[in-house]
Amino acid sequence: MHRFFVPFESIFETKVVFPAEISFQIRKVLRLSDGEKVAVLDNSGLTRLVTLELTGNGSVEGVVQETIRENRELPIHLDLYVSLTSREKFEWVLQKTTEAGVSRIIPFISERSLIHGNEKDPDLKKQQRRVAIMREAAEQCERSLLPTLEPAVSFQDAIRSVSGTGTNLLFWEEERERTIWQALDTADRNPSRISLMTGPEGGFTEMEAQFAQSHGWQLVTLGSRILRMETAAIAAILQTAYEIDRRKSLP
Amino acid sequence: MHRFFVPFESIFETKVVFPAEISFQIRKVLRLSDGEKVAVLDNSGLTRLVTLELTGNGSVEGVVQETIRENRELPIHLDLYVSLTSREKFEWVLQKTTEAGVSRIIPFISERSLIHGNEKDPDLKKQQRRVAIMREAAEQCERSLLPTLEPAVSFQDAIRSVSGTGTNLLFWEEERERTIWQALDTADRNPSRISLMTGPEGGFTEMEAQFAQSHGWQLVTLGSRILRMETAAIAAILQTAYEIDRRKSLP
Repeated sequence: MHRFFVPFESIFETKVVFPAEISFQIRKVLRLSDGEKVAVLDNSGLTRLVTLELTGNGSVEGVVQETIRENRELPIHLDLYVSLTSREKFEWVLQKTTEAGVSRIIPFISERSLIHGNEKDPDLKKQQRRVAIMREAAEQCERSLLPTLEPAVSFQDAIRSVSGTGTNLLFWEEERERTIWQALDTADRNPSRISLMTGPEGGFTEMEAQFAQSHGWQLVTLGSRILRMETAAIAAILQTAYEIDRRKSLP
Repeated sequence: MHRFFVPFESIFETKVVFPAEISFQIRKVLRLSDGEKVAVLDNSGLTRLVTLELTGNGSVEGVVQETIRENRELPIHLDLYVSLTSREKFEWVLQKTTEAGVSRIIPFISERSLIHGNEKDPDLKKQQRRVAIMREAAEQCERSLLPTLEPAVSFQDAIRSVSGTGTNLLFWEEERERTIWQALDTADRNPSRISLMTGPEGGFTEMEAQFAQSHGWQLVTLGSRILRMETAAIAAILQTAYEIDRRKSLP
């Protein structure tokens, strides 16, 4: 069944009025018919199963048949701080970490980041494209909440933004000892949010690692192989999500 | 430091004679100089640190300075059975799972695989390209062993090839309960090899899942989100590798 995230304003008590671009997608791209069933999500955690009504004027409405609460989300929030990089790699990270369950993605620029310059202020079109990639990935993997994409910040600001609070893990290739399970053992046993940070192609500098540590971030390893920057980002989310699920199942 | 896997025949007691294509890469692509240090691997687990000697006739030799044993490999073998798919996705799976530590990749063709036809007998050029992708990934992530790529087999042959022996996990989106840690709890506590299987774009059929189960494969979940086929393959390796490392660290 096709799934669509719609703005909250599109939802009425027993009816959904699809926004223009989704109406277009339903009619022209997917070519769905009158009466077909789709799932509508409003990013509140609820899923509305609706039957489509293709009106004469080109708009599409949905009649709510059933409202259900699905549970495909991780029990806690996972924030990913990831270095800006080339378009293809960055978009791949957005897509894959959305599938893996990320809550929020915060791009940053550190000393060895491939992209510096005016990336802090990306044009509107680029931002819309990125958000669309995440929305499509969230629809495809049947998530009930949409992850958000924040504007890019400097490495220092990223580190400071959660300094002194919460459970913060920076994955560093020079760290050989501390694993995810060890880091979570020494942190708050029941965190509601975990921040994960993975570096640019050339890695973090020693000074950056020390800066993070002095601001309460733990330096953590992803295993003994050196991962490419995009692989490290997805590995950080997949392995931390796995560990969270495992801990939740413990008696 | 650049790293190169070379055939066993290229290695002599105190000297390495690089094969023609690596000599070309060293001279023309990387433009390394006489006297530079590189690491040479022969897929035995040993790493030889050598200094380059660029001879007059275009060949390259290396003088062994030191032989070390690195340990970046997982403590057990991880075999991945993965559905054949489009070129781009398949090559991506080869690269990423090599980084994540896979030992052996066995492509298969099941009912819903995108590729059927004569893929069982890929042309030599395609096979060489695939092997080169894995070798480059292994060099980049500093592995000491090269994973191997097997010829494609049918789903039934893949299932039967390890039937009745070892620890075999088939990841199925319809399985909601059994996790990797539960599957490993009920299996051999000290396996030397684990076989993992992830499906094609449309997933496994119910009949395929039952067939696998009747041949001793456990049906396992990768978490509550539906992953794309290529994401499932990397998630299976990353999460199982994580679990193996975690178990190894237990007292």
